[in-house]
Amino acid sequence: MILRYDFGHPYDTGALVEQLPVSDGPVPHFTVSRKDAQVSFSVPLGEEDMIFGLGQAVRGLNKRGHRYRAWNSDDFSHTEDKASLYGSHNLLLFTGRDGVWGAYFDDPGAVTFDLGYTRSDEAVITSENGDLSVYIIEGDSLTDLVKQFRRVIGKPYLPPKWGMGYIQSRWGYVTADDLREVVRGHREKHIPLDTVSMDIDYMDDFRDFTWDAKKFPDLKAFTDELRADHIRVMPIMDAGVKLHPGDSTFDAGMEKGYFCKKADGETFVGAVWPGKAVFPDFLREEVRQWFGDCYRPMLEAGVEAIWNDMNEPAIFYSVEGLQAAYDKADSLRGGNIGVYDYFDLKDAFTGMSNSMADYRRFYHIIGGKPVNHEKVHNLYGAMMTKATAQGMKAVRPGKRPLLFSRSSFIGAHRDGGIWQGDNFAWWSHILLNLKELASLNMVGFLFNGADLGGFGANTTEDLVLRWLQLGVFTPIMRNHAAMGTRDQEVYRFRNWETMRDVLGVRYALLLYLYSELVKAAETDGMMFRPLAFDYADDEVACRTEDQLMLGDAAMIAPVYEQNARGRHVYLPEDMLLVRFRSAEDYDLVPMEKGHHWVTLQMSEFPLFIRRGHVIPMAKAAEYVAGVDASRLTLLGWIESDTAITLYDDDGESDTIDLAAGLTEITVTVKDGQATAEAEGKTLDATRIVIG
Amino acid sequence: MILRYDFGHPYDTGALVEQLPVSDGPVPHFTVSRKDAQVSFSVPLGEEDMIFGLGQAVRGLNKRGHRYRAWNSDDFSHTEDKASLYGSHNLLLFTGRDGVWGAYFDDPGAVTFDLGYTRSDEAVITSENGDLSVYIIEGDSLTDLVKQFRRVIGKPYLPPKWGMGYIQSRWGYVTADDLREVVRGHREKHIPLDTVSMDIDYMDDFRDFTWDAKKFPDLKAFTDELRADHIRVMPIMDAGVKLHPGDSTFDAGMEKGYFCKKADGETFVGAVWPGKAVFPDFLREEVRQWFGDCYRPMLEAGVEAIWNDMNEPAIFYSVEGLQAAYDKADSLRGGNIGVYDYFDLKDAFTGMSNSMADYRRFYHIIGGKPVNHEKVHNLYGAMMTKATAQGMKAVRPGKRPLLFSRSSFIGAHRDGGIWQGDNFAWWSHILLNLKELASLNMVGFLFNGADLGGFGANTTEDLVLRWLQLGVFTPIMRNHAAMGTRDQEVYRFRNWETMRDVLGVRYALLLYLYSELVKAAETDGMMFRPLAFDYADDEVACRTEDQLMLGDAAMIAPVYEQNARGRHVYLPEDMLLVRFRSAEDYDLVPMEKGHHWVTLQMSEFPLFIRRGHVIPMAKAAEYVAGVDASRLTLLGWIESDTAITLYDDDGESDTIDLAAGLTEITVTVKDGQATAEAEGKTLDATRIVIG
Repeated sequence: MILRYDFGHPYDTGALVEQLPVSDGPVPHFTVSRKDAQVSFSVPLGEEDMIFGLGQAVRGLNKRGHRYRAWNSDDFSHTEDKASLYGSHNLLLFTGRDGVWGAYFDDPGAVTFDLGYTRSDEAVITSENGDLSVYIIEGDSLTDLVKQFRRVIGKPYLPPKWGMGYIQSRWGYVTADDLREVVRGHREKHIPLDTVSMDIDYMDDFRDFTWDAKKFPDLKAFTDELRADHIRVMPIMDAGVKLHPGDSTFDAGMEKGYFCKKADGETFVGAVWPGKAVFPDFLREEVRQWFGDCYRPMLEAGVEAIWNDMNEPAIFYSVEGLQAAYDKADSLRGGNIGVYDYFDLKDAFTGMSNSMADYRRFYHIIGGKPVNHEKVHNLYGAMMTKATAQGMKAVRPGKRPLLFSRSSFIGAHRDGGIWQGDNFAWWSHILLNLKELASLNMVGFLFNGADLGGFGANTTEDLVLRWLQLGVFTPIMRNHAAMGTRDQEVYRFRNWETMRDVLGVRYALLLYLYSELVKAAETDGMMFRPLAFDYADDEVACRTEDQLMLGDAAMIAPVYEQNARGRHVYLPEDMLLVRFRSAEDYDLVPMEKGHHWVTLQMSEFPLFIRRGHVIPMAKAAEYVAGVDASRLTLLGWIESDTAITLYDDDGESDTIDLAAGLTEITVTVKDGQATAEAEGKTLDATRIVIG
Repeated sequence: MILRYDFGHPYDTGALVEQLPVSDGPVPHFTVSRKDAQVSFSVPLGEEDMIFGLGQAVRGLNKRGHRYRAWNSDDFSHTEDKASLYGSHNLLLFTGRDGVWGAYFDDPGAVTFDLGYTRSDEAVITSENGDLSVYIIEGDSLTDLVKQFRRVIGKPYLPPKWGMGYIQSRWGYVTADDLREVVRGHREKHIPLDTVSMDIDYMDDFRDFTWDAKKFPDLKAFTDELRADHIRVMPIMDAGVKLHPGDSTFDAGMEKGYFCKKADGETFVGAVWPGKAVFPDFLREEVRQWFGDCYRPMLEAGVEAIWNDMNEPAIFYSVEGLQAAYDKADSLRGGNIGVYDYFDLKDAFTGMSNSMADYRRFYHIIGGKPVNHEKVHNLYGAMMTKATAQGMKAVRPGKRPLLFSRSSFIGAHRDGGIWQGDNFAWWSHILLNLKELASLNMVGFLFNGADLGGFGANTTEDLVLRWLQLGVFTPIMRNHAAMGTRDQEVYRFRNWETMRDVLGVRYALLLYLYSELVKAAETDGMMFRPLAFDYADDEVACRTEDQLMLGDAAMIAPVYEQNARGRHVYLPEDMLLVRFRSAEDYDLVPMEKGHHWVTLQMSEFPLFIRRGHVIPMAKAAEYVAGVDASRLTLLGWIESDTAITLYDDDGESDTIDLAAGLTEITVTVKDGQATAEAEGKTLDATRIVIG
């Protein structure tokens, strides 16, 4: 059951697809208090209560013990103290001795989540603007709460099947030849690859929708050439449009009045990659329509994939902010700059980025009226994604586009995926990757993943390898890095063969992963779940932060510590360890419920299959279309007959018929031997452990 | 055996107390190569080789897989990508299938340690200046390598016993009344405390050696007042002296020519807390003598403890650097600042801190000749510590001062301790604290510890609690935080009683901790050791990164994950778990060698005692002098008679007579009961588990 309570004048954020009636009376669970415009919702926390949710955020699966702030932010340093990342996903799930319940704060402005931070025995959620709908979710399990919530926010975006192939990206691929080299590097060594992705360098002077003709003389011919090799091209698109009279996007947007304006009616100017830029008012349907249409030429030239970036929106500085920094510098010029002035001076130049002052300078038009950006900030990226999705679907009707975004809000999960933003080549970010995977599943962003190998800072060979071993399971599997950092394409490493074998496992498991993704999307389920969701009565499972359930049958537990040769794993029930070295070479080790030390050499990584379940595996392939779905090996540890239902389809139609796509694989045990059958598939059941 | 090889013209860094003869012939293990002034030492790494060492540094106990740089740096953000922290401790210990060996690079300039970073199968150490002595250490175990190395670098500094008491500090304690409030906060609630410590605010306008008379009207009376309550006062001292004609330190230093000069003979001016400042040339004995004497007035007014800070030296900016930033800003004024200019502009103001350009601007006088700071940078903090130690010993001859520093170099371990610098209120920094504890033991800095609760960013109650539970065991036990962050004094928290009980365990174990510290110092041993040092044949132990051996009898394994209620622990042999809730309330759980999940509620923390060993525990006390050494409870799990040797002394004399201070406690087992005896002590052996 979900109850809605309104405060102030809620904006229609588009998060929900179902209009719920507004309830009267007091909000359950919370004590509501008001201070100026703010509305706060507080609830006492029992010693053992846990809180899940918040989607993209630092720290644990259990979010208790920190103060978060919903405020979409371009902040690449995802350290523990950060309150905000790129997206705002205001769902909380409470679980404790008194049962479970959830709350969704549908507010496009800033919301603070003080979850046992100020007082360890209290959670206080504060809407800074006080205009919001609060949805209280009652249910009988964490899974049930998510299912109910997901039903009202609508089914998630699904990528084309090839979008789950391996993507190689880099800020620094400039020309068609750069991309050709990347393709060749993979293909020559038979390293799987489906997509090559480019950052801003392909553009002409960082102008949206331009392709520098010197870098890409014939885009259509180029995409054809790569497609023949089963490779797609995925360019970036930024939110800010260069202030550049003569640029067709700029000119058209200015003429139509589609860019955000200041209170005085002048177009707001903030700087991003190209320097001075203007910002489409994506909150208007006609602007989204227009911006979406701007993709058409490149889509018609064969581009089938887009990633949207800088859409929090990131603003390096505004004209006014830069002037203020200069004024501060001028005021200090020539004097003895002591510590406080020194900090002020530094802050003037570093703090001018993504400043609240700038976010208050411009307006959107909503219902014909200007609304200050601050009130609806967290919708901006979501609405850009919506624009792009529309534009892509218009060019290829009936087909799923490959699309992901940096900034997001619940609702955008219906239009595209998100990647986890500009992380670092830190071991700790493998674990953060894992945690966000599950938290983003709760809020509908099933199609997500992190920059494997790390975006910022120099990576190392072992970090890339261990991170790929997690990436095998993440829906988006992209290796991406920042300009100026060490090259991290797989084929460049000494141990590229080990990495190739890891990627092979991805393709061998792709049918299972795709099936679990689609089933989760279509049934309001979670492909990845904290153990707390499946084993609510198991205290150790409930507080396990470095393992996740994957689909119905499996559990993952990556190695995320440098120089480790194994890790501790907690099995909440009997499971079969599959210790992968490649899609052909792996150990099968039945393990009993409990604590285990699992030895994992650098080339090894684990998948755990619940006892009584089986998982199908194909042969490794070099691209998704090359995966042979008709010949499957089954892995598992069973005592008696079992079955698994596998979903598959053409991989691109945008209408999903779940029932039509399901195939049941039945496994029969007789005389200590398993045999399996399913229509249209050759099945090898010899890797099933009986016992 | 230690062999010395010289390259170029090595400086006398003072790291060694023993002059070793220079060897001829090729350096064992390494291939030596030269490029311009640089000298590089490379060695292949086997797949399973590990590398310990480097003292204060990020990442693992096993340093393999990163590129470190010896370059003392004021950098508060100790993230995984950092190459440098505050101290340079150029010792590497290699261990692998071909045995163990070590290398010490005695070079006061920049040294790069590429430890399997550029190539995963090779370590390359590069001296940027090429003037150094390399010491190759051959031995039969990691412990043996350390013992040999420590013998040639001389015995570590030891604090007075009260220096191991709890220290409460904060950047933000301004007046005597602020400190009185802190003392009262602890004493009223019977929370242990020995020292209150102040950051820069006590000074008059951040001028070294001044005490603002408005804040501290009568320092002598104040230190007397606190000492009557068994509390010492510990002020900070910064390396930079304010450029302030009329200030006695500045005037005297200028008159004597004691500040570092530029090539043109002018005094180098760099800004720190007070703005423009000058830098004593601590590399000169007469300057150290003078600076050390400057402490005399405050020491005579009853100050018995000093911490030295900002002595890398940190330089916020130089006159020249600031001008360059302004020039950059001016050059961009009015134009369209695109992304690269934007980054340049930001970097101009952020990058002017601690810049290489500034470090090259000034000189030291060594042997009567000017030497560019860059060549000897890493000695600066060490020499400030030496100056302070001399000054403190001159005022209280025969007594050990309490002294620790931020910046350091090997050699300074004989003069003072170091704290681990400006960490963050991050859970990951509990683990970093643990790792540095052991790595610093290798290089002689036995007296060390981290800012408990975290220096930067806002802490939480649970983080303070869990961190204190590790702090119980660290030689320096200081709670310290930055201005502007949340208050974190124990008495302010809701669960202060739990924290008080944790501190009680510190005082109850203090006799054991003090004994282990002194024994390690006097016998070239390590109070804290990676498990790899004690269990070289145990592959899991060798790669254990989150547990340490403590003294001869024990092992620690802190909880460092938020919201955890336990942790995985690997026991390399049978051990007794002591699950502490307080010095009076704890469980004793015998556990067999192997992997264990140990339940640890928020109020609980573990100490593991090796089977066959016992550890003495006193009653909790509110200050070190209140610990009753004559009444001890013994904890342990033994089958048969055993003994432990405990060192004790008056806690302050600077000559240690190890043999004279040792008391043997013998434990006899008869009829399943233990009895214990030792001269002058009442012993309770009923907490010894027999079996």
